[in-house]
Amino acid sequence: MPSSDTPHTLDAFHRGRFHLLQPALKGHRSGVDAMVLASVVPNDFSGRVADLGAGAGAAGFAVLSRCTKASAVLIERSDLMADFARKSLALPENKSIAERAEVVVADVTLTGKARGAAGLADNSFDYVIMNPPFNLPTDRATPDPVKAEAHVMTDGMMEQWIRTAAAIVKPGGSLAIIARPTSMAELLEALQRRFGGLVIVPVQPRPQDAAIRIIIRGIRGSRAGLTLAPALIMHGETGNGFTERATAINNGLSGLF
Amino acid sequence: MPSSDTPHTLDAFHRGRFHLLQPALKGHRSGVDAMVLASVVPNDFSGRVADLGAGAGAAGFAVLSRCTKASAVLIERSDLMADFARKSLALPENKSIAERAEVVVADVTLTGKARGAAGLADNSFDYVIMNPPFNLPTDRATPDPVKAEAHVMTDGMMEQWIRTAAAIVKPGGSLAIIARPTSMAELLEALQRRFGGLVIVPVQPRPQDAAIRIIIRGIRGSRAGLTLAPALIMHGETGNGFTERATAINNGLSGLF
Repeated sequence: MPSSDTPHTLDAFHRGRFHLLQPALKGHRSGVDAMVLASVVPNDFSGRVADLGAGAGAAGFAVLSRCTKASAVLIERSDLMADFARKSLALPENKSIAERAEVVVADVTLTGKARGAAGLADNSFDYVIMNPPFNLPTDRATPDPVKAEAHVMTDGMMEQWIRTAAAIVKPGGSLAIIARPTSMAELLEALQRRFGGLVIVPVQPRPQDAAIRIIIRGIRGSRAGLTLAPALIMHGETGNGFTERATAINNGLSGLF
Repeated sequence: MPSSDTPHTLDAFHRGRFHLLQPALKGHRSGVDAMVLASVVPNDFSGRVADLGAGAGAAGFAVLSRCTKASAVLIERSDLMADFARKSLALPENKSIAERAEVVVADVTLTGKARGAAGLADNSFDYVIMNPPFNLPTDRATPDPVKAEAHVMTDGMMEQWIRTAAAIVKPGGSLAIIARPTSMAELLEALQRRFGGLVIVPVQPRPQDAAIRIIIRGIRGSRAGLTLAPALIMHGETGNGFTERATAINNGLSGLF
């Protein structure tokens, strides 16, 4: 079990309604992005969710914590991170979500039969959520290979991830992505002819700031047009406090829509 | 002169700093969209602007009214609308902008030598602004052919308009577009490899409403990433009054940025 040997932290989310073991130094550490992504799934959602590139499981856990009728499969390529997710599910404080969760070690970019064999069957999910690596290869490299793998976006990656999402979600099912605004063109191109009825929500640190993230939600096979929704604003014009809406989302008290 | 025979109105813009003759019933009637588009050009801009699909000239006139060192060429396919623009330039109240304006009757979708011959020389502008037709062919058709031509977006139109913009603007020059959010994917695809450093500004009727327009500004040949700026919000949560920022933009008292 790699995580026994790996320095880690135990973090409370949703005001203690679930806990997450995360490597202290290696890999991707989850926080607000994962909570915002999870908030796209509606409160009363009762289907099967795939969390692509789940890492230690923050987003998938957050969906299960708020959406008490949903089940989820956490799909993660790194053995180290998947092991953290499994260990978190074994914590007694996560019992109510653990019975609805499963961890699968698989590479999201797999295709065809290899993807199915890895546990990602076609048309088998009602909702797919993803927080793909989003640092450009030209950004400052991290010396930690697990963290680098979790953070660095490679050429054509959005296309590969969205192709997998389109394959595994049922027609009429949904996809939610959190990404940097600078990936918007690549994302919209990959979504074309696969997902429609797109809703983009800018995520701004403050009312006067440009967005640092975008949420895109789409429906498999829909031909409806794109909507650009009002921004989710995390903080006020000054100060460190979260806005009322951001607080509710961070703590799993309300969905984004 | 077709406009002599065409019922028309004389409308004041920028608190009377310029006036516009517009057909009362035929063609596209300009208003807030044109003022928002024009506001993208910086106050101190002193170069040559092309207004593609200028209609009666509202956006181009608004740039010249606020940017007193700029000059503009209004490019319009419809003889009727171009004639309105010329007649407006001949009004004594438009004298200060008329000496910096020119009207060219040409189809924005022309290519190669035909485009140059029509008066749209390559690399000859510092700024291009455009408010392309944006109703989908499936929207309710208008019985007026001049209005239909001004309003209905045809297949591949964004690509054709942006191709022309990329040809006629100098490297390092700028492009500003106002469009519907639903055209975002098509616009971003056409802008790729031509314009970079994109800034998208959502235009929302109210703080709680989805955007009804987007402004996209880009720089020819730039490789900078995309920015999603805070929305321009036209009205308050209730009521008909314009916000302070929208009032300033409507009246040519400040630029968008």
